[in-house]
Amino acid sequence: MSTIQTTILKDNIRTIPDFPKPGILFRDVTTLMRSPEAFKLSIELLIEELAGLDVDFIAGIESRGFVFGAAMAQKMGVGFIPIRKKGKLPCEVHQVEYQLEYGTDILEIDKTINANGKNIVLVDDLLATGGTVLAAATLIEKVQGSLIKSVFVVDLPELGAKDKLDERNIEFSALISYEGH
Amino acid sequence: MSTIQTTILKDNIRTIPDFPKPGILFRDVTTLMRSPEAFKLSIELLIEELAGLDVDFIAGIESRGFVFGAAMAQKMGVGFIPIRKKGKLPCEVHQVEYQLEYGTDILEIDKTINANGKNIVLVDDLLATGGTVLAAATLIEKVQGSLIKSVFVVDLPELGAKDKLDERNIEFSALISYEGH
Repeated sequence: MSTIQTTILKDNIRTIPDFPKPGILFRDVTTLMRSPEAFKLSIELLIEELAGLDVDFIAGIESRGFVFGAAMAQKMGVGFIPIRKKGKLPCEVHQVEYQLEYGTDILEIDKTINANGKNIVLVDDLLATGGTVLAAATLIEKVQGSLIKSVFVVDLPELGAKDKLDERNIEFSALISYEGH
Repeated sequence: MSTIQTTILKDNIRTIPDFPKPGILFRDVTTLMRSPEAFKLSIELLIEELAGLDVDFIAGIESRGFVFGAAMAQKMGVGFIPIRKKGKLPCEVHQVEYQLEYGTDILEIDKTINANGKNIVLVDDLLATGGTVLAAATLIEKVQGSLIKSVFVVDLPELGAKDKLDERNIEFSALISYEGH
């Protein structure tokens, strides 16, 4: 990734202080999505992170992960699997409860997916503590999928996701890293 | 749209009886998203519905509208604007409360968007009573955008959206229509 590309992405990510609580700098990618140039670039670069991999499905985490993941799936010609919050899928689901930075939450995946032997890439906008990713990885296991990589637009390395993802052997990368929270 | 195309889409839409409440046949597009062929086709056909229009932004309604809208925006090379549920955007918002089939809800748009003179297309998976679309249209007006068309994967004409959308001069089309609810 070139310096110019990094600059285009960073210039289009908005930083919002004290959201969702005092002391947190929230890295907001909705401004990036609405820039035609930066959105297009982010999708191209996320797909470059998958070079050499044989991808069957993109799984996106609700709901900013839907934006990046669906755009990637469309461009790559693969299917898109939504990983949703509790109660949003209209079918039988597998469910995982997990720890958030600010409480607990539940993620669900359609139980009828049979991803046996299929290679799945997990997509979200931001990697913080890694809790959401671990929960999503568990859901992908439950449908017999093979999670071959996770990709993110933004990574906050100081929040310690790397150790947790390494422990589970989840390969990952992000386009942009920010120091601090 | 050819008969074969209609068949591919319909074959990949799952019908779930009695969701979210007894007597309702829920038309579920998550199975369509995960079919590489049907997802790709749906995006191409949704974009065909915009032939001849000069589109600046795709606005997607949370959260299945994010999947179709973001994929369209990526392919068209335009920006994507998320229209979100209450409290999800980290910034100052315009807000509209509206009537759902099963209660009321609130939609929000980023107040900092200045879409003055920009052509916006609204995208969602399903057109039912039209309440969500009218609310989203109001939000697009509030950021000075020009809503030039709304497109949907599925339309349920018997729920009467057409009259409401006509009244507001909102042009719309859908790929697939189902009789009944």
